[in-house]
Amino acid sequence: MKEINISTPNKKLLDEINQKIDFKTKPLGALGQLEAIARQICLAQQRLTPELIKPTIVVFAADHGLAKEGVSAYPQEVTHQMVLNFLSKGAAINVLCDQHQIDLKIVDAGVNYEFEKHKDLLFAKIGMGTKNALNETAMTAHQLEEALENGAEIVKDLSSNGTNIIGFGEMGIGNTSAASLIMSLICKLPIEKCVGRGTGLDDDGWQRKLSILSRVQERHNGISNINDLLQAMGGFEIAMMTGAMLQAASKGMIIMVDGFIATAAYLCAWSLDKNIEHYAIFCHQSDESGHQLMLDFLKVDPILNMNLRLGEGTGCALAYPLIQSSVDFINKMASFESAGISTND
Amino acid sequence: MKEINISTPNKKLLDEINQKIDFKTKPLGALGQLEAIARQICLAQQRLTPELIKPTIVVFAADHGLAKEGVSAYPQEVTHQMVLNFLSKGAAINVLCDQHQIDLKIVDAGVNYEFEKHKDLLFAKIGMGTKNALNETAMTAHQLEEALENGAEIVKDLSSNGTNIIGFGEMGIGNTSAASLIMSLICKLPIEKCVGRGTGLDDDGWQRKLSILSRVQERHNGISNINDLLQAMGGFEIAMMTGAMLQAASKGMIIMVDGFIATAAYLCAWSLDKNIEHYAIFCHQSDESGHQLMLDFLKVDPILNMNLRLGEGTGCALAYPLIQSSVDFINKMASFESAGISTND
Repeated sequence: MKEINISTPNKKLLDEINQKIDFKTKPLGALGQLEAIARQICLAQQRLTPELIKPTIVVFAADHGLAKEGVSAYPQEVTHQMVLNFLSKGAAINVLCDQHQIDLKIVDAGVNYEFEKHKDLLFAKIGMGTKNALNETAMTAHQLEEALENGAEIVKDLSSNGTNIIGFGEMGIGNTSAASLIMSLICKLPIEKCVGRGTGLDDDGWQRKLSILSRVQERHNGISNINDLLQAMGGFEIAMMTGAMLQAASKGMIIMVDGFIATAAYLCAWSLDKNIEHYAIFCHQSDESGHQLMLDFLKVDPILNMNLRLGEGTGCALAYPLIQSSVDFINKMASFESAGISTND
Repeated sequence: MKEINISTPNKKLLDEINQKIDFKTKPLGALGQLEAIARQICLAQQRLTPELIKPTIVVFAADHGLAKEGVSAYPQEVTHQMVLNFLSKGAAINVLCDQHQIDLKIVDAGVNYEFEKHKDLLFAKIGMGTKNALNETAMTAHQLEEALENGAEIVKDLSSNGTNIIGFGEMGIGNTSAASLIMSLICKLPIEKCVGRGTGLDDDGWQRKLSILSRVQERHNGISNINDLLQAMGGFEIAMMTGAMLQAASKGMIIMVDGFIATAAYLCAWSLDKNIEHYAIFCHQSDESGHQLMLDFLKVDPILNMNLRLGEGTGCALAYPLIQSSVDFINKMASFESAGISTND
């Protein structure tokens, strides 16, 4: 991936931002997390009147060679079936994006299916799914490079179209496995703390998944950098999201991070450039066990905790109106002075 | 207050509701709390295609005799100043209601100020603020009756205008004190567990508030029913919300409960008729210490936890789009069958 430069927002503006927030007609700090989000967006955009323009959620879909080991409760063809469901507007993410006028783009990052052209489908296919990480590296170095680049290109196009806030979602049967493996290595946690029930494994299924992922780790031991990690165990959609997130931060866009798998991609991006954290908003804490540990590791505070575990970017879509509320209150609320209200000084 | 009859929703529909939710194109239970809310609204409305019509937030404002004891960080005149701020659309609740096209009504339940007529201001004034509960009962039996009735009347009007979901907010310097006193008695918790920092008391202020509220409890010991409690220590806005909530439930409307003070009113309503719980959605957990204990006492699960402590119904406005999402997903998402997707059976 071409060198990406993510800048640290200039903190000079912080006093003015805080003053603007504190002079609104409310007790100091009374809007809680909305104030923190407003502060972050003002800093990222370097302005006192932040704006969210053409909010977009991009859902990266891909298949996983590991799926044939039975790590998921669903068969692999559900990946492409769900992509078709996205395109015919039947999925949860469609309903939520419609509700909030969020643009939705679906990316074929590497689904094991040949889709027909569709206005909402972006072709960025790296292959017909990754290889089985139990036996070999999931992707070649060249494929990884291509996935990172394609992610960056998609974001560049959205950015030049005006979008300044972007949510990252995913679909891929087997991708909680890849995410667990990434989490284990980056967060330095034993794999059993990183493995959850995905789309709904029972106890036996969970044990099988754990045992397979342990074997994948043994097969690829000694990994010491993010590129090798993604190549060995990553999914095309996760690698593409990594490239996309880095690009978004370099453009100063606000990044909405969804659940377990999107956060695994974020972990990779963050490991490559920690400056990304100034641009990232964590939309929810997933019910997938492991996600809380990821968020703890990153020391971040998600907006929602509604026991969701669906992916697709649904957490981003649900959190979006709350992010919009942060921007609205700082732009539109009256100040004590303008409203003629007594303060507690 | 006239006898109010709140019905228990017929549970016959539950199997069909669950089936409809479970056949949506998502893993079982993957929409978490959204599924629980959808289920509740379907039952309350007795239909598989729930609807939210003319969402409205009503902010009840009143003054408190106890405010002159210095229980708040702000002077009493802030109550009427904030009402004027609501009417000129400068407050947080205005911004949030605008964002979500929620109708906003402000009720003068008993503010120590004579307002001019305004299209968004409903006159339901019981008096120029309550009496000081440290020295006497806050209101007369007649005033309490009037407050409960006025609340019920306001809801009847909204209901006959088509509204079927209503949020309850409040404004009143000193009203966290009344709410703490109500909480202490209903939840049977010592007053020190019920007293928080309100709009931002420091340690000394908190101690003073605690000491005053303890003296109020001593002054009115032996209270054994909700009417006596509200009369002795309640605020006009809290009593009016109590009447309004009971009426809303009796009309089958969805009740959005805001933070600490609105939940105190709910505690009163719930004590009078526990069937109200079928209609109530708890919008957020406030940062006001004590609110979590109230929610634990009621065994309910709030939607948001964003460290808000502003009141005004802001938690309702912020949670509203998530409630709308619950309704949208059950109405609009495709089923596995309609989308042609493999299940995990």
